[in-house]
Amino acid sequence: MCDQLRFDYLSCAGHPTLKTPNIDALAVRGVRFTRAYVQSPVCGASRMSFYTGRYVSSHGASWNGFPLKVGEMTMGDYLRPLGVDTVLVGKTHMQPDTEGMERLGIDPQSIIGVRVSECGFDPYERDDGLHGIGPDGRYDPREPRYNRYLNEKGYPGPNPWHDYANAAEGEGNALASGWAMRHARKAARVADEDSETPYMTRRAMDFMREAGERPWCLHLSYIKPHWPYIAPAPYNDMYGPGDVIAAVKSESERIDPHPVYRAFMDFLVARNFSREEVRREVIPVYMGLIRQIDDQLGHLFGFMRSRGLLDNTLIVFTSDHGDYLGDHWLGEKDLFHEPSVKIPLIVCDPSPDADGTRGSTCDALIEAIDLLPTFLERLGADPREQGHRLEGRSLLSWLRGEAPADWRAFAFSEYDYSMLPASAKLGTAPRDARLFMVADKRWKYVHAVGFRPMLFDMQADPNEFRDLGNDPSYADQCDAMHNALSEWAMRQSQRTTVSEQRILNARGKSQRRGILIGVWDESDIPQDSWSAYRGGG
Amino acid sequence: MCDQLRFDYLSCAGHPTLKTPNIDALAVRGVRFTRAYVQSPVCGASRMSFYTGRYVSSHGASWNGFPLKVGEMTMGDYLRPLGVDTVLVGKTHMQPDTEGMERLGIDPQSIIGVRVSECGFDPYERDDGLHGIGPDGRYDPREPRYNRYLNEKGYPGPNPWHDYANAAEGEGNALASGWAMRHARKAARVADEDSETPYMTRRAMDFMREAGERPWCLHLSYIKPHWPYIAPAPYNDMYGPGDVIAAVKSESERIDPHPVYRAFMDFLVARNFSREEVRREVIPVYMGLIRQIDDQLGHLFGFMRSRGLLDNTLIVFTSDHGDYLGDHWLGEKDLFHEPSVKIPLIVCDPSPDADGTRGSTCDALIEAIDLLPTFLERLGADPREQGHRLEGRSLLSWLRGEAPADWRAFAFSEYDYSMLPASAKLGTAPRDARLFMVADKRWKYVHAVGFRPMLFDMQADPNEFRDLGNDPSYADQCDAMHNALSEWAMRQSQRTTVSEQRILNARGKSQRRGILIGVWDESDIPQDSWSAYRGGG
Repeated sequence: MCDQLRFDYLSCAGHPTLKTPNIDALAVRGVRFTRAYVQSPVCGASRMSFYTGRYVSSHGASWNGFPLKVGEMTMGDYLRPLGVDTVLVGKTHMQPDTEGMERLGIDPQSIIGVRVSECGFDPYERDDGLHGIGPDGRYDPREPRYNRYLNEKGYPGPNPWHDYANAAEGEGNALASGWAMRHARKAARVADEDSETPYMTRRAMDFMREAGERPWCLHLSYIKPHWPYIAPAPYNDMYGPGDVIAAVKSESERIDPHPVYRAFMDFLVARNFSREEVRREVIPVYMGLIRQIDDQLGHLFGFMRSRGLLDNTLIVFTSDHGDYLGDHWLGEKDLFHEPSVKIPLIVCDPSPDADGTRGSTCDALIEAIDLLPTFLERLGADPREQGHRLEGRSLLSWLRGEAPADWRAFAFSEYDYSMLPASAKLGTAPRDARLFMVADKRWKYVHAVGFRPMLFDMQADPNEFRDLGNDPSYADQCDAMHNALSEWAMRQSQRTTVSEQRILNARGKSQRRGILIGVWDESDIPQDSWSAYRGGG
Repeated sequence: MCDQLRFDYLSCAGHPTLKTPNIDALAVRGVRFTRAYVQSPVCGASRMSFYTGRYVSSHGASWNGFPLKVGEMTMGDYLRPLGVDTVLVGKTHMQPDTEGMERLGIDPQSIIGVRVSECGFDPYERDDGLHGIGPDGRYDPREPRYNRYLNEKGYPGPNPWHDYANAAEGEGNALASGWAMRHARKAARVADEDSETPYMTRRAMDFMREAGERPWCLHLSYIKPHWPYIAPAPYNDMYGPGDVIAAVKSESERIDPHPVYRAFMDFLVARNFSREEVRREVIPVYMGLIRQIDDQLGHLFGFMRSRGLLDNTLIVFTSDHGDYLGDHWLGEKDLFHEPSVKIPLIVCDPSPDADGTRGSTCDALIEAIDLLPTFLERLGADPREQGHRLEGRSLLSWLRGEAPADWRAFAFSEYDYSMLPASAKLGTAPRDARLFMVADKRWKYVHAVGFRPMLFDMQADPNEFRDLGNDPSYADQCDAMHNALSEWAMRQSQRTTVSEQRILNARGKSQRRGILIGVWDESDIPQDSWSAYRGGG
């Protein structure tokens, strides 16, 4: 998994200037899904959906740093009983529910406590890749092993993550921090091999070497191409302004925009990415960081091939959300335009069952929560037996070239903007600062609690420039999409302790265990069983 | 709390023949809420809402025996930090989430484990009052202390709960089991003082004697007047067929009924309660059981008065749902007609603040989930601080004679019928076997997943005989109610680890902890803080 990688910044996805030969080669060996959506276009919430297999409003960890509540089952809880070690190298953005753990007497240092704190993974290396320090202290209080590594490699100081891996040489003796985007194209003060992506790739190889014969599921989770936008040589100037594609934006979008969209356009990151100067400086480095990932994946796949792992390992390449990069007058992610909510998704299954689909694309509506059921099915379990918890569908049939007749008609995504100053400006209480996306293959509808909806016709207007949510002639279409949302919102999502099958098995059986409801006399129940109800007395 | 007590079977609620002087006296000292609804008209689901302060689709334990998932906070979790012992005497219908406890390493025998297993209560005496035994064994595997008590008092055998407390003398030497309603008016083979209601009342007094000076919240939870419908003398014939009020039913209800309603009318209990012979036999005993509770509450209140407890104890009298008793051609509970979903609710607060409302009634829309916030506020805490978990509102302002301007406009209730054979007949999958009620003071709307809605105009048709859900002239009213349901279904219910206030406090603060998003150069951030971002290097 990459972080903040747009769906269209791969050469196999059609990017005209960026080259990603190793990822392209994976797509040739697997299936590339062209309509894959995240459950929320923000790191933490999106990831918790990948890890739990549940929508954001089901697991509740709706923003970065909002703890995933104790009791929510995660990937490890599903895979370990199948004999599969479930291991993390890199970022999760998980915040442990320490209050809940304390309430339930779970020691955070115990094996269970560590897994509950790491969204179910055994942390081979946990590093969220955000080790900024500000006037009020550290964003992430955990000291990363990576800083120790850099110190050992001769990059001194308490936070070489910032001073070397995410900073360049400035004028004079000044440090040019990667936090200022104007420095983006300067080379980071770190050798390529010591920068974050190669480091994490080697950690993944370390794990694979140590893993032995037991089956495993490794979540190799890169922080890049997420900001700070800065790269070591040669990736800092592998691409230049001439390689930057035009922003997908229209002046018409700024005329009477939806109030929430308007508020987001006013963010500093949006205003800066609306300047061509910024895009020309930042996007080449964003591309360089992707290219670095591609190179590293080339090494990793070579390593795996040499150990025979490519023959028995299902490989998924994806991201937790996209990056506007100035499209729609926005930066970052957060809203539901395609560059934000759509992700790259390549699944390569070495099984002969998947031979027929290699190199193909699939345009079915896919959701991030589909991955966990896919893993379960691939490991021989029936994910439908977990259908009372898992809200996605296995992708295996698509990989086998079968198109399930009852595949979903709508994809859903959610966004909680309560932590953003915009919610204060808009006057929305935290509980109401929520957006819901419903998309089918043509329409994309956004419900904003307390505001009018947004609607886009992605067929007639693939660039999503014309918001039809205020146009009375589309009221029926809005109603139809809202009904789909409404039905989805009423889904059975919390009855997680009882499976469908258990209900089918137990239905109507209480009478056989001594509960007689509405019986007038002995003729109302099977004659031979009456004596059993006499209490054994 | 009583079990299965209808809202209108109290003399203070207008019952013409039943006398409940002690409960009436409580109403004179407190406020009687005349529009109180349960969150689900079935024991387990309703109770889990009382105990968690959350809607059924929020806590997920949507039917009897569906475990309440580990991690859901319960009354004890809220009250104990305020120094209040939270204790159970009687029934909860709680099923522990043993799978979840095992996954999290919680020992069921530890204090935490016991509380997690008893929906947060310290069990002074747990007894669900359903100790039936059938061909497939016991409904409730736990042996009740009550059976030992009966043995000690000279009622022999392995299950005197059934053979004595819930059975009468039949012809010859035969036992007339209370499971057969035809025996309802025969006297149970137990002395009044040894029957369940007096036993539990004494257990409550035992607790109060032992409790000492620490504040407590006692959940005294009677099994009665729940079936088996059988009572000891003199309560078995304190009322007769002449005291039975007419069934609220109309032949018109059987003409083209809603498919789900039709299926429920076909249950054995519905068919039997539709016979006057059955009502005449059973309802007098139902009334006798209520009268017995009233007598016992008289003893309890006297005991409390003698110990000074009436001066400092908030007393709530309520029930977990009602009983159709043949109304609408139905027996039991389950659907949303008033006799099933509406409950008696009397709240008596000894505080002088409540002097102005004593003896009054309040017709605001009240939900069962309002009690837990009421307790919190009464104990000096601000329940709004728990608004990310608790979905109800404190009733304290009503007790003080204030009518909050922003009180809810709709009450909601839910029902999961997946465990009933009706769901098989109706062809609904377990996940779809769900009903939702939305009621305001005039309209009651029922959304049945997969079927047309039901709609009643409770003003023009207080008996709820005319289902307007199929009438095109009420389509707009149906839409309006469905929109309210839809908005409710999208509520923020699972973000339980982060409070509204914590969001307001933390909003926009990540920049101060070293996360700079969209900064182009130093001019984009407060000048004096730039050096802080330099990583300490």
